[in-house]
Amino acid sequence: MQIQVAGTGICVPATVETADDLSGRIGRSPEWIRSRTGVAERRISERRMDVMAADAAREALGGVAPDLIVNASLTPVQLIPDSSVFIQRELGYSGIPSFSIHATCLSFLVGLHTVGGLLGTGAYRRILLVSSEQGSVCRDFDHPESAALIGDGAAAAVLTPTPEGHESGLLAWSMATFPEGASLAEIPGCGVANHPNSEGALPEHNLFRMNGPRIYKMAVRRVARLVSDLLEQARLEAGDIDWVVPHQASGPALKTLPRMGFSPERVVDVVGQYGNCIAASTPMALHTAVADGRIRRGDRVLMLGTGAGLSVAGMILRW
Amino acid sequence: MQIQVAGTGICVPATVETADDLSGRIGRSPEWIRSRTGVAERRISERRMDVMAADAAREALGGVAPDLIVNASLTPVQLIPDSSVFIQRELGYSGIPSFSIHATCLSFLVGLHTVGGLLGTGAYRRILLVSSEQGSVCRDFDHPESAALIGDGAAAAVLTPTPEGHESGLLAWSMATFPEGASLAEIPGCGVANHPNSEGALPEHNLFRMNGPRIYKMAVRRVARLVSDLLEQARLEAGDIDWVVPHQASGPALKTLPRMGFSPERVVDVVGQYGNCIAASTPMALHTAVADGRIRRGDRVLMLGTGAGLSVAGMILRW
Repeated sequence: MQIQVAGTGICVPATVETADDLSGRIGRSPEWIRSRTGVAERRISERRMDVMAADAAREALGGVAPDLIVNASLTPVQLIPDSSVFIQRELGYSGIPSFSIHATCLSFLVGLHTVGGLLGTGAYRRILLVSSEQGSVCRDFDHPESAALIGDGAAAAVLTPTPEGHESGLLAWSMATFPEGASLAEIPGCGVANHPNSEGALPEHNLFRMNGPRIYKMAVRRVARLVSDLLEQARLEAGDIDWVVPHQASGPALKTLPRMGFSPERVVDVVGQYGNCIAASTPMALHTAVADGRIRRGDRVLMLGTGAGLSVAGMILRW
Repeated sequence: MQIQVAGTGICVPATVETADDLSGRIGRSPEWIRSRTGVAERRISERRMDVMAADAAREALGGVAPDLIVNASLTPVQLIPDSSVFIQRELGYSGIPSFSIHATCLSFLVGLHTVGGLLGTGAYRRILLVSSEQGSVCRDFDHPESAALIGDGAAAAVLTPTPEGHESGLLAWSMATFPEGASLAEIPGCGVANHPNSEGALPEHNLFRMNGPRIYKMAVRRVARLVSDLLEQARLEAGDIDWVVPHQASGPALKTLPRMGFSPERVVDVVGQYGNCIAASTPMALHTAVADGRIRRGDRVLMLGTGAGLSVAGMILRW
């Protein structure tokens, strides 16, 4: 697939919440938070997800309008219209086709693969893909582990067909979804199953719950299989990968990657400073490593992660 | 784009609610309902959107598993995981990659175009696209016009690359989104803007509101432009279109199509019996016309509609 990431951008909310700040609200020590989740601090946004998204998008776009806007986020502004409309409004555009892709934490990866397919049709030439999350609104302080993981933030990428003379492209793609893990990470409300106005609806239905140990157990072999599949598709070995940009699920989750043959200094890790920003985590890590000069044209970049579902997905890009 | 709709399916909930049944709940006469919305009756589902989706999907699949499941619906089961996971679970599968596309009433059309792009990459060969809506849960009986429009239902399509010797394919695609219409059709809740647990959250935030006359006014010229664009892309005239399969927005909305040169008997109209089933409306109409033998291989099919945003989108398919 002949696609290139032409630009990236990020929005890091101003307010920092440290493990010390959070400790009292969840009844766990700062040490517990840091060791259990790997999150030393996170950002909390007072600005709405569409406003953060527009900030990140402006940086990625560099002043040139896209011809399609795809929102790839979990936390919506509201149920209708879909959030891409509010992001477009915040950017000051009108008339640009817009829609959303939702695969929880994997929304950005699924979005990147999907808009790659759309670029191939010729219908679009410059696609804005943006993930923006205000997960802090859905934190359940009675679930210390999940509440200690989540942070807010946004990041964006602009995708174009690979320009003449460049070698950028998608070398491999793989995804699988296992519904037997559906109850391991949930916001059970905000839909038809536990509609907020229905009898029996509870406030906790609208908050995030997860069973970290069971997800870890279910994911670890499936992620290893995903990595083998990707490397085989691209006819590469772990040592050929220049940068691994994983979903920032948790500190412990990131620590599993070196065991698959990737050296720790090649794994982009921002979970300590930003927490798990749901779909925005992967592009926030990606932008960080592009902006600081680690990722350069020609590099082989493996992006991968897990999401509620349980889903696993990954891709190898020639940058 | 060399794609073919290999199969379609539908789920029509058993419970019928007529204009007479609804009249008392919204304080309007049955005649008012029928003339204002064109909806004589609608179906109300006691079964969840994922259960309806699986029914429609089974009919479309005909016993052969897909290699990707795309949910293209507005009403989710819950906020996490995305509804595609529940649909896969209900179908009894595991391991099939699954995600959701959301463009309100246009989700099926946007989904069809998008999965066409994915088929082009070779990553998938048999994609299930399903729209299932339980909009009845979000009806606001204090807004008679919108409450009288909405109905429940589901429909699905299976997409494959065009088989050897067939001429099926996408002849034209167009979409545009105008955020200045964002407030004309809304469910303001179930997201971060009016989170159900937030101070100031109101039950009506979780219900559907729309301003039909203003949408009509904003949409009518934009739909006419969309149709011209599509016909020009495909180098066709209105008379060359065998079947028009529109989103079933309302009776009055469907009546605008003959004014654009399409004869009324060529417009597939199921709004009177099913109401506006949000994203499921277009594929329910499509399935109806395929199942009763109207749409046949080789026919030129124009599908189009409007959605909250305000968005307009359409495509011309060689069936």
